[in-house]
Amino acid sequence: MQRYKITLMYDGTAFAGFQRQPDKRTVEGVLTKVVNKMAKQPDPAIVVYGSGRTDAGVHALAQVVHFDFPFEIPAENMHKGLNSMLPLDMEISRVELAAPDFHARYDVSGKRYLYRMDLGKFRNPFKRNYTGHWKFPVDLAKINTALQDLVGEHDYTSFVASGAQTRTFVRTIYEATCRIDEHNNELIFEFYGNGFMYNQIRIMVGVLVEIGSGTRPVHDILRLYQVKDRKQARRTAPAAGLYLKHVYYLGEDPAHPTKLPPHQR
Amino acid sequence: MQRYKITLMYDGTAFAGFQRQPDKRTVEGVLTKVVNKMAKQPDPAIVVYGSGRTDAGVHALAQVVHFDFPFEIPAENMHKGLNSMLPLDMEISRVELAAPDFHARYDVSGKRYLYRMDLGKFRNPFKRNYTGHWKFPVDLAKINTALQDLVGEHDYTSFVASGAQTRTFVRTIYEATCRIDEHNNELIFEFYGNGFMYNQIRIMVGVLVEIGSGTRPVHDILRLYQVKDRKQARRTAPAAGLYLKHVYYLGEDPAHPTKLPPHQR
Repeated sequence: MQRYKITLMYDGTAFAGFQRQPDKRTVEGVLTKVVNKMAKQPDPAIVVYGSGRTDAGVHALAQVVHFDFPFEIPAENMHKGLNSMLPLDMEISRVELAAPDFHARYDVSGKRYLYRMDLGKFRNPFKRNYTGHWKFPVDLAKINTALQDLVGEHDYTSFVASGAQTRTFVRTIYEATCRIDEHNNELIFEFYGNGFMYNQIRIMVGVLVEIGSGTRPVHDILRLYQVKDRKQARRTAPAAGLYLKHVYYLGEDPAHPTKLPPHQR
Repeated sequence: MQRYKITLMYDGTAFAGFQRQPDKRTVEGVLTKVVNKMAKQPDPAIVVYGSGRTDAGVHALAQVVHFDFPFEIPAENMHKGLNSMLPLDMEISRVELAAPDFHARYDVSGKRYLYRMDLGKFRNPFKRNYTGHWKFPVDLAKINTALQDLVGEHDYTSFVASGAQTRTFVRTIYEATCRIDEHNNELIFEFYGNGFMYNQIRIMVGVLVEIGSGTRPVHDILRLYQVKDRKQARRTAPAAGLYLKHVYYLGEDPAHPTKLPPHQR
């Protein structure tokens, strides 16, 4: 028995999210099938554990999963073997032999997400699955001011979709940035924190673009912390613009180089 | 009765090409349906004429079509009205009132295509529908030398797929360039000529990357002109990397600013 840690990219467009569901094409479902096929075992003899879910249409530049394989094969062979069986909208970028106690989900100490918001006047057919779209002028300085209100430990109740199952809405955001990609005419948001809840980033982005366009006060996020009312955040930015960029584990995480991670969920 | 000239973008991924076919989703089919709906006429009372076909999976940054509308409405209203009914993988970028004798296909004097070839070592899930993929090292200088052999009036028989229906394989390429997009790690080809035949650009790109990687002599194109044998060109680059970038009409075409166009097909 050998535990493997897998880092993979996927284009979320054609997946009904990460989590396995009967009769739906999901990332976990496809991966589980391929890993069991590789081991010549009946699916789902080997279970695949992800770092966390992504929703339908959300992409990953570096999702992490682990599984226990019945025998050891070199990482490079596992890498080539799995990629040769995966569909073209998934691609494994790294395979590592992991310690028997490594856990892709429980050992997470932080995550980094990216959000691409197209600023074109018109919808761009080539971006519909890969960006959100905001056609109003935005003031980047206002967004960057507001982002500072998001950083730190806060109760993000106003920024969480109603379906979220969690004991507490308190999380920490270590870093929140926004820049303009002039070449592609997009806002590029990045958020790095100890954990994000259901739709949290998409709701935060919705608030931030409204602040950028002046339809919401620059420090409205401070008010939203107080009111604890998701309805006042209104907008949820589309799933298509969201990318899981990096999963940090204990010892790799700049915010937690050694100590135990805060409880994730 | 008013003739309209429409310029549109489409992501070719989910279309079975441009040309209308029963029971298939095509660009012409979707456009025809929407234009007739706009006129409240039974499809296909109004016929849509394109500048030419694009194959399944091929994209357009600026395809051109015309149709005759039963009554005149302002170009801006037509633009907004049609876009509001089109699916998200199509977008009209320009609507013009055209002269009654303008013809989107017969008046074409030239076309410009772009080809994106990803050079990444691994398949990129986000590019699978938008680029070709060539994982071998390439020498841009060799490709640029070879491109000069493509420019001019030539018999391109070796570069045409067997299904092509045409009286002559002689065409003129006015301009053929290649550059490396460092940011995206891609080769970007552009071809501007008086007309391209079935699969011609994809076959030319296949030959060019082989020249770039040294598996074919730099001036092999001159030999291919002589042998007039498509089998010797071998490879057809994937449809996903090909984009119709511009359709030139009489008077707009740098190569034919005034005179009558050469016969297109």
